[in-house]
Amino acid sequence: MSTGKEHIIKSYDDELARLTGELVRMGELAVSQLEAAIDVVERRDERAAQHVVGNDDAIDQLEQEISHDVVRLLALRAPMAGDLRNVFAALRIAADIERIGDYAANVAKRSIPLSMAAPINPTSGLAHLAELAAAEVREVLRAHRDRDAERAYQVWKDDVELDDAYTGYFRQLLTYMMEDPRNITPCTHLLFMAKNIERIGDHATNIAENVWYQVTGEPLTAQRNKRDLTANPEMPKLGDRGD
Amino acid sequence: MSTGKEHIIKSYDDELARLTGELVRMGELAVSQLEAAIDVVERRDERAAQHVVGNDDAIDQLEQEISHDVVRLLALRAPMAGDLRNVFAALRIAADIERIGDYAANVAKRSIPLSMAAPINPTSGLAHLAELAAAEVREVLRAHRDRDAERAYQVWKDDVELDDAYTGYFRQLLTYMMEDPRNITPCTHLLFMAKNIERIGDHATNIAENVWYQVTGEPLTAQRNKRDLTANPEMPKLGDRGD
Repeated sequence: MSTGKEHIIKSYDDELARLTGELVRMGELAVSQLEAAIDVVERRDERAAQHVVGNDDAIDQLEQEISHDVVRLLALRAPMAGDLRNVFAALRIAADIERIGDYAANVAKRSIPLSMAAPINPTSGLAHLAELAAAEVREVLRAHRDRDAERAYQVWKDDVELDDAYTGYFRQLLTYMMEDPRNITPCTHLLFMAKNIERIGDHATNIAENVWYQVTGEPLTAQRNKRDLTANPEMPKLGDRGD
Repeated sequence: MSTGKEHIIKSYDDELARLTGELVRMGELAVSQLEAAIDVVERRDERAAQHVVGNDDAIDQLEQEISHDVVRLLALRAPMAGDLRNVFAALRIAADIERIGDYAANVAKRSIPLSMAAPINPTSGLAHLAELAAAEVREVLRAHRDRDAERAYQVWKDDVELDDAYTGYFRQLLTYMMEDPRNITPCTHLLFMAKNIERIGDHATNIAENVWYQVTGEPLTAQRNKRDLTANPEMPKLGDRGD
């Protein structure tokens, strides 16, 4: 996992600014992957899908480099209090961004069997979920860059919109499956793709919690009820057309 | 995220032994959660399911404590080479165990709407997946405890068995859905529960990679082809009974 890079140890401010920049770049790459994944779903482009899947390695590599740089930095310096908190948050944020990249790649991967299945493909709902998720991730990256706890808290709160949109789409897909068994296989892929995007929102809230902690030194305790309502009893029964 | 604990800094060996012990206990807790989740699925016990979901907080707390202890340790000492590699691996292993706990809790959570849905519930396949996953996690924890790279590599290789079992179960569930629309809602829950368990195996392989790296100092590069075949085109079509 060594990057082989030698660090010129500068002030902690410089080190943290560099680290923040790396995290923001890593996050932008992950968001681009999500947008590219939705694009290939809509264009039914298998080669492009494989390309997105392959690009995930770059994000994984970035995370390993950031984690390694952080641990190495910790080993070379003895940070305390705020500095330690910043470095700690950076480690966790990098891990969340890496997961976001994994989910985006999985969406692209599932677009391949989806394009072979069909007949029906209500992918517009999927694109809508992706827009909400991409906006969340971009916003929380800004909050991290600007050390803006309030902005992070807003992202953390607003994730409920993505959860609700996911639940509505989930119910819609169930009704398609109930209407025609030929929809079952493609809709099953769409269910998993939608779930991946909903999870991206959860990781954005994780990042928001870390930004909050980083800035305030306190955990963002107030537990927003994580609302994947599809894991709750209000599921459409046969004949229930959901939304 | 501070635990408020004061460390009596002992030798690195002592520190690492303590850290390894914490990770193994955390991992055992995660495996117990998975087994408890399968138990509530089969017993249709909503209260017990809620209990499993609640227990996940303990695992999350353990991960935060371990991560914080590690970062604090790094800040107080200046580890190099092997020591640094060990600490680095511990951080990543804790994160993987935390994810395993999340997946186990989600299986328990989904057992609630599942027990309300039905009519059919082929949960025996789910229990089989859980047995394979639990065995993987226990084995990789032993490999970590004993710093046994070969044992870790075996877990890493054997995860393909869980992947194949998952794929077979997935196809089986699709055919149930195609046979009777009343099966769609319960089988959808089972699909997600099965996917969670398959992901637990992936995290066991992540841990195996970290154990390998920890012991050998080299990344476990040989990329085992992660085989969630359900994300590949060989999906059962209408009339195809899969296995």
